[in-house]
Amino acid sequence: MKLASLKHRRDGKLIIVSRDLRQAVDASDIAKTLQDALDDWDTLSPLLRARYDALNADHVSGRFPFDPFACASPLPRAFQWADGSAYVNHVELVRKARGATMPESFWTDPLMYQGMSDKFLGPREDIALCDEAWGCDFEAEVAVITDDVPMAVSPQDASQHIKLLMLVNDVSLRNLIPSELAKGFGFFQSKPASAFSPVAVTPDELTEHWQDNKIHLPLEVNLNGDQFGAPDAGVDMTFDFSELVAHAAKSRHLGSGTIIGSGTVSNLDRSKGSCCIAERRMLEILDLGAPQTPFLLYGDRVSIEMHDKEGRSIFGKIEQEVVSYG
Amino acid sequence: MKLASLKHRRDGKLIIVSRDLRQAVDASDIAKTLQDALDDWDTLSPLLRARYDALNADHVSGRFPFDPFACASPLPRAFQWADGSAYVNHVELVRKARGATMPESFWTDPLMYQGMSDKFLGPREDIALCDEAWGCDFEAEVAVITDDVPMAVSPQDASQHIKLLMLVNDVSLRNLIPSELAKGFGFFQSKPASAFSPVAVTPDELTEHWQDNKIHLPLEVNLNGDQFGAPDAGVDMTFDFSELVAHAAKSRHLGSGTIIGSGTVSNLDRSKGSCCIAERRMLEILDLGAPQTPFLLYGDRVSIEMHDKEGRSIFGKIEQEVVSYG
Repeated sequence: MKLASLKHRRDGKLIIVSRDLRQAVDASDIAKTLQDALDDWDTLSPLLRARYDALNADHVSGRFPFDPFACASPLPRAFQWADGSAYVNHVELVRKARGATMPESFWTDPLMYQGMSDKFLGPREDIALCDEAWGCDFEAEVAVITDDVPMAVSPQDASQHIKLLMLVNDVSLRNLIPSELAKGFGFFQSKPASAFSPVAVTPDELTEHWQDNKIHLPLEVNLNGDQFGAPDAGVDMTFDFSELVAHAAKSRHLGSGTIIGSGTVSNLDRSKGSCCIAERRMLEILDLGAPQTPFLLYGDRVSIEMHDKEGRSIFGKIEQEVVSYG
Repeated sequence: MKLASLKHRRDGKLIIVSRDLRQAVDASDIAKTLQDALDDWDTLSPLLRARYDALNADHVSGRFPFDPFACASPLPRAFQWADGSAYVNHVELVRKARGATMPESFWTDPLMYQGMSDKFLGPREDIALCDEAWGCDFEAEVAVITDDVPMAVSPQDASQHIKLLMLVNDVSLRNLIPSELAKGFGFFQSKPASAFSPVAVTPDELTEHWQDNKIHLPLEVNLNGDQFGAPDAGVDMTFDFSELVAHAAKSRHLGSGTIIGSGTVSNLDRSKGSCCIAERRMLEILDLGAPQTPFLLYGDRVSIEMHDKEGRSIFGKIEQEVVSYG
């Protein structure tokens, strides 16, 4: 099943999108918003799925062409966005480039930060930036949305709470990070609004590519029309999503609509390219002694997408331009 | 004006509470929830205020006795909870006790962390804890709720976006903090659900005690019936709420219903006591060489309240017991 939110008031209007992303149909009579659907998922998801099946079979009235530009992020605002850092070789690389070693515990204890969730960008919305000198970067990731998760859930039990999957552009302001992390309280100003793929899909849509709580397909990133990277999201993911959900729930319940991110996708195989500029710059530092690729400038365009083996887009495309704010 | 949310589904049911906290009246015909009211504050707050005036004048039908035990936190779940650390002498003390100096920049650049907001505790709800060894602590704070705040707002303009005030118990798991902060991404497991006062009030309710974007009254904390501290929230607050809101909005818009906390209230005058156990332990370390006061154990009860000069409770009382989870 594929779901999206049309731009409409603050929480969007729920629609169902056909498997091929060509057609859509209103679902707001079943649940006004995706958050409403997640709040009562066991009851409402069978109704949504029945309409999804009818849409794919051309047996539904009122369908209309699907337009990703009309979409907000699937959850235009959410009650929780917690982002992991599950591709540990990426973390190790970032540290190596600045001459720091990585604690061994990073291979067994997930990194995770609490991100802002009160106002996400839409999948085709500009990234408005006050200052190019802040070092704006994209981070291409995959993410899950959960229903209610009880505190202290085991990884085994956590996997059944994963209801939807999405792609993410976790926008980062690299030059604000060092001074902010030095204060010891984590990211705040350095992590502005993220954007999510036009469509959120149930795990069964991935067929055999959803296995062991990982998405086993390349995540394709383009910068100004050139491929920047396409690492496989299922390779080198040290912590799978059930482990990330369990980590988040160690000392608290998680509310329905909680979004958990994978962190920047990264493969040890360097031929796969990178999912953020910072990683490419680290590789340049290691190879050439200095970074060559600048961070995003006004007018730069980044896109993030994932195709199945037959070349069909699964989540629709995130595509954003960096613009000057104000 | 004083507002509260009766426990009802996930987002509560909006009620208006009389100034003396004795009576209440339904407001869900004006706005179903407090979030709904904040989403359209300019239009809806005059209607709420008219009913509040009628309630205080005994000119309203359908009023009922106000019961804080029937209340969720004013926002039972929120899209953003950002907690500052505005009482910098508290931060300095914590560092001094572990032999660390504090960077000078802490006096000019606010500390702030992104907290979880998907499931707050109610003002009289137990703190369910998996393990006493995690070192559970209370942190008594004051907080504001904003409407929509534009990115890059000035502190001067930020103050007009402060719509409501509350008290907070920012629950912390002290013994999980060192290893979590050492990872560099800030708090996550060490900051479980916070609880807020039964009632949120508009700044005018504070009369002359709301000045310079600070609350100038003692914040009273009791532990198992004994006074633990009562420092004045208006004294030694290095960053006022307009500065904290502007800090949060430096690189992003803030959505309506954003909650910004002050951090643990603390006065340089030690006779005022402390608003968290950790601070008292730091003073014990400095005075006696070792901490004496244990963190919270199962069965411990903490309460947080603020009275005006005439002894009337302004926000109602947070009162919580620590219990074993599961």
